[in-house]
Amino acid sequence: MRILVNGSEAGLVDARDRGLAYGDGVFRTLRCEAGRLLAWPRHYARLAADCAALGIACPAEADLLADLAALAPHDAAVKLTVTRGVGARGYACAAEVPATRIVQAGPLPAYPAGLREHGVAVRLCDWPLAIQPGLAGLKHLNRLDQVMARREWDDPALFDGLMANARGELVEGVMTNLYLLAGGTLLTHPLADCGVAGVTRELVLECAAALGIAVELRAFTAEALATADAVLLSNSLAGVLPVARCGARAWHDFAFARRLHDAVALLARQESRPCVMP
Amino acid sequence: MRILVNGSEAGLVDARDRGLAYGDGVFRTLRCEAGRLLAWPRHYARLAADCAALGIACPAEADLLADLAALAPHDAAVKLTVTRGVGARGYACAAEVPATRIVQAGPLPAYPAGLREHGVAVRLCDWPLAIQPGLAGLKHLNRLDQVMARREWDDPALFDGLMANARGELVEGVMTNLYLLAGGTLLTHPLADCGVAGVTRELVLECAAALGIAVELRAFTAEALATADAVLLSNSLAGVLPVARCGARAWHDFAFARRLHDAVALLARQESRPCVMP
Repeated sequence: MRILVNGSEAGLVDARDRGLAYGDGVFRTLRCEAGRLLAWPRHYARLAADCAALGIACPAEADLLADLAALAPHDAAVKLTVTRGVGARGYACAAEVPATRIVQAGPLPAYPAGLREHGVAVRLCDWPLAIQPGLAGLKHLNRLDQVMARREWDDPALFDGLMANARGELVEGVMTNLYLLAGGTLLTHPLADCGVAGVTRELVLECAAALGIAVELRAFTAEALATADAVLLSNSLAGVLPVARCGARAWHDFAFARRLHDAVALLARQESRPCVMP
Repeated sequence: MRILVNGSEAGLVDARDRGLAYGDGVFRTLRCEAGRLLAWPRHYARLAADCAALGIACPAEADLLADLAALAPHDAAVKLTVTRGVGARGYACAAEVPATRIVQAGPLPAYPAGLREHGVAVRLCDWPLAIQPGLAGLKHLNRLDQVMARREWDDPALFDGLMANARGELVEGVMTNLYLLAGGTLLTHPLADCGVAGVTRELVLECAAALGIAVELRAFTAEALATADAVLLSNSLAGVLPVARCGARAWHDFAFARRLHDAVALLARQESRPCVMP
């Protein structure tokens, strides 16, 4: 794995960085395939929107692309992190401080073969997602809920854990967005007061609609798993994955998930850009 | 300001540190007065308890004290940060990774003179505190709620902002704990599902009881300010401060706050330890 911090290769951050002190920043994870950054325009747009929501000056797209060109990944998991920059002790932030820009490229996760053919197993996490409308949807650096939920299991057979909010609504996986197919409609949580709005979620919703599937942003509880025709997960590294098992409940028909994955992967490639100097 | 990271003076942190990636860590701020660390045993105990709550291996007290002896502050604001350490991409954490230990000493805040004589002005913040019982009380590094609330004002005449949770209960200040004196009873939020349990809050509650004041951990809303006899703030750097003004409401009798501050300051000094090699 290689990391550039503000373009420098040392891979070190000032210990007074507000990203470290307060989780005061945002990030994105994306897939680089054969030297192309999948769905790049959407990832940059979300990064910029999340920065704007927190009042952080987003680095120029050209600076991030220059960092990526220097790292020159071929097939890689790329992570972009932007923090509010170095600060003094205390919550107040000086307006003139430049943001910190961290770009890293590492190997793609070593997923077992056949995830899409056989589906993945998940569990229901006990740790609830905090409700916070002001931060909902943002991929910010305050991720203790995910850290604590991920600590609930170490069975490598489990791909992810599903997280509910305090109202008992199933919102997302620890590292994925979550969808139910029920009665011909694809449901996912509206993320109005918690959750992370992934770029791949955006692609999933567009592609499902293009495939003629009704899409509804609507909350559901774990009870809805019992009657769901299919359960799907998505993120930018894995694409769309069918869930084969959650506790005692099992699913066997993964045809829709594969069709949706193919559509999402095609669109992400169509919207990719080469990892070269802008 | 000087910073030691795992005992080293460079003041740099690995960009892959989980404290930066996820806010996966805890911190404490304490006051060093004439070379003595005020209320040290309580600060270390809280740091260790907060680490334990997150499953982070807390650094040995001797290591932190050795760092502090190397920095040798005289009068200083000391900040201790412990993160889960350096990780790979992804929420899962390897058990064998050592924690990252950051010790910094800088100048005490330049508070205006007469804060305790004239009281301080505060505002009611719009940004709500998220409700999360699993993290309540902990001084963890997921502090975007405080960052966003602190961005609501830049009037230097305001000392702090009061934050309510989603139920409308007034919980604490952005950088302080909060107390109401009403009908001879000192009230503060129980912090069962949000808020930070400061060491000075602990001292305040003990000293108030010792002064013969009834102490009650009970939630109250902003309406309670209207009839409160006094409103107080506390943190480890400022001690106990009387609130003189919040919006249109003003208070004038600061005798109790001064008495409580003196008792808290005395106890913190009694429980101090010299900043020398353990």
